[in-house]
Amino acid sequence: MATLPSKSEIMDACPHRLVGHGVIPIQKQLLELVDHVDPHLAADRYGQGEVIRRFEDKIAACLGKEAALFFPSGTMAQQIALRIWSDRSGRKAVGMNPTCHIFRDEQDGYAHLHHLEAKLVGEWDRQIRPSDLGADTKGLGSLVIELPQRNNGGTLPTWEELVEIKAWCKANDVVFHLDGARLWEAMPYYAKTEAELTALFDSVYVSFYKGLGGIGGAMLAGPAWLIDEARIWQRRHGGNLIHLYPYVVAADRGFEKYRPRMATYVARAQEISRFVGKLAHVRVTPEVPPANMMHLSFTKPQAEVEQAALETSNETGLWLFGGLWVRPFAPAPVTEISVGEAAMAAGMPLIERALRRLDERLA
Amino acid sequence: MATLPSKSEIMDACPHRLVGHGVIPIQKQLLELVDHVDPHLAADRYGQGEVIRRFEDKIAACLGKEAALFFPSGTMAQQIALRIWSDRSGRKAVGMNPTCHIFRDEQDGYAHLHHLEAKLVGEWDRQIRPSDLGADTKGLGSLVIELPQRNNGGTLPTWEELVEIKAWCKANDVVFHLDGARLWEAMPYYAKTEAELTALFDSVYVSFYKGLGGIGGAMLAGPAWLIDEARIWQRRHGGNLIHLYPYVVAADRGFEKYRPRMATYVARAQEISRFVGKLAHVRVTPEVPPANMMHLSFTKPQAEVEQAALETSNETGLWLFGGLWVRPFAPAPVTEISVGEAAMAAGMPLIERALRRLDERLA
Repeated sequence: MATLPSKSEIMDACPHRLVGHGVIPIQKQLLELVDHVDPHLAADRYGQGEVIRRFEDKIAACLGKEAALFFPSGTMAQQIALRIWSDRSGRKAVGMNPTCHIFRDEQDGYAHLHHLEAKLVGEWDRQIRPSDLGADTKGLGSLVIELPQRNNGGTLPTWEELVEIKAWCKANDVVFHLDGARLWEAMPYYAKTEAELTALFDSVYVSFYKGLGGIGGAMLAGPAWLIDEARIWQRRHGGNLIHLYPYVVAADRGFEKYRPRMATYVARAQEISRFVGKLAHVRVTPEVPPANMMHLSFTKPQAEVEQAALETSNETGLWLFGGLWVRPFAPAPVTEISVGEAAMAAGMPLIERALRRLDERLA
Repeated sequence: MATLPSKSEIMDACPHRLVGHGVIPIQKQLLELVDHVDPHLAADRYGQGEVIRRFEDKIAACLGKEAALFFPSGTMAQQIALRIWSDRSGRKAVGMNPTCHIFRDEQDGYAHLHHLEAKLVGEWDRQIRPSDLGADTKGLGSLVIELPQRNNGGTLPTWEELVEIKAWCKANDVVFHLDGARLWEAMPYYAKTEAELTALFDSVYVSFYKGLGGIGGAMLAGPAWLIDEARIWQRRHGGNLIHLYPYVVAADRGFEKYRPRMATYVARAQEISRFVGKLAHVRVTPEVPPANMMHLSFTKPQAEVEQAALETSNETGLWLFGGLWVRPFAPAPVTEISVGEAAMAAGMPLIERALRRLDERLA
């Protein structure tokens, strides 16, 4: 076997990518913001100013909430929302799926900074269901649902399930909070407006750097009193930055450019999943992706799959994926595919050829 | 009296400004970053990547510390540093001047998020002195000094005083933390390298958007173990952002462009203060500014001074200042002048003419 170039050499040499919107150097990303921004617009200042207020109003209107506040991160936005709800109800327990970002990915900030308690609801490999709620969850202060649930490949509950969960929350005085890190990506499935969906929730977090391709930043939306209190906590967290405009301008650009494309990405994700369904050594979950993402899992060991993927990318010019991980509940290595402009530009013939070659290598 | 244009009309029409580096629209600021950044440099990712690590190493070296971590804000950086020091010592009390940002400007985040206690040391209108330290401050976990102390016009303790305070801290096992929000601006006074000065301190925070003209961001520097723990707390705070490169690139640009100009700004500040010393109705503190900033205070009521300043700016084309405030310990309205490229471009003849006309209007 001839020596392969290094991983980063192969990645840099691939003209196409399967995941996301493609990798863009800093300078080019900044130039895209220069093109998008009104030449006379002045910088925001500590959360004030036209550039930020206009975008907050736009997202609040889109989500059908009274008010919205731009945050540097969703980690900060969600902890703060849950803290304020907890202070109001006097209940510290927050219901969340075991895959929840708050529980897994934030170094337990919810506990260390806000003395909240995580009450795990449902199972790792599926969404929270109405049947998960009962005597055991009655003391919750709030319940968090992530749409789509990233760590199982992007599942979504049905609209009817969401309505049922909402009814349970209302009956039990439990705040219903939406982790909408990828909410834009979930919208084609429900065939409703964002505001129709988010009307089920008391507060909503959305992100701007996943499907919307921004540089960072998040929004918390909800009743005006909640957002007023969130401003105070944002200051306490060190998140009331003198200027947030690079994030705001990029978010606004992504909202205009990529949000209308979500149904296209979901359709492409379903084309990919249908093709993978025909392969022998690659599995796809969910079988029919409701959002623009899926997990591919493999029957072979991690190192073998990574080597096969590198060889395939080197051969086909399609960068498939950079890494694999192993989920706590299953031994098969898995990788996340999220569909954006990269997979649209690559086209199905190239994607199919590369995935077939990968499958052949794993035989 | 003819009707004046509105405040914002006058400000927009003034070709010159007294304070800062001038007001630059978003698009122009982004274009300056495009010019500064290496065209092939890739975005940082959750604190990793060449663009951010290289800048962290550069600042750590400049400050003579083992390691440094880029933060979205100084609020976050300082609270986290003090929390880690407090967890280590078991002491919750932090000594700080009554003007300290942590005490006044962060919605008591230090208490709400970190259960730290503020122990006020010294007086509002001066720096902490060695004689402020004694039996009353022996239980402190850490002591914060701000160089220069913004809220009294930018005073600095002498090197000998700092050495004496450091010796007291060492003898009493008190951590000595530097709030260096404007450290670059203080350096000409000490005629030492940053590393020589910061050797007195156990941890150091510096900022990049004041004298260095960046978009935002801060650095915490200290021993490697402290920075390692700070990374964990930064994640908890929601400050470990996917991308920080707009701040990092702007900070690096400001470090290269404005840091070498600080002695020039301090000299201009002293020229301005000497001239104000000759006026009848304007007072300057400190009398001889050790840094690039000063307070101007006025014997007349706030509304009258604001009106006179507007008329003067409208007449001379030099925007003097936007607002006045009243300090808790003195009735005279005051404004802050920080010297940067704006005052250099305006030139002393225009500055003198405008200040003289302001003084005449206040007669």
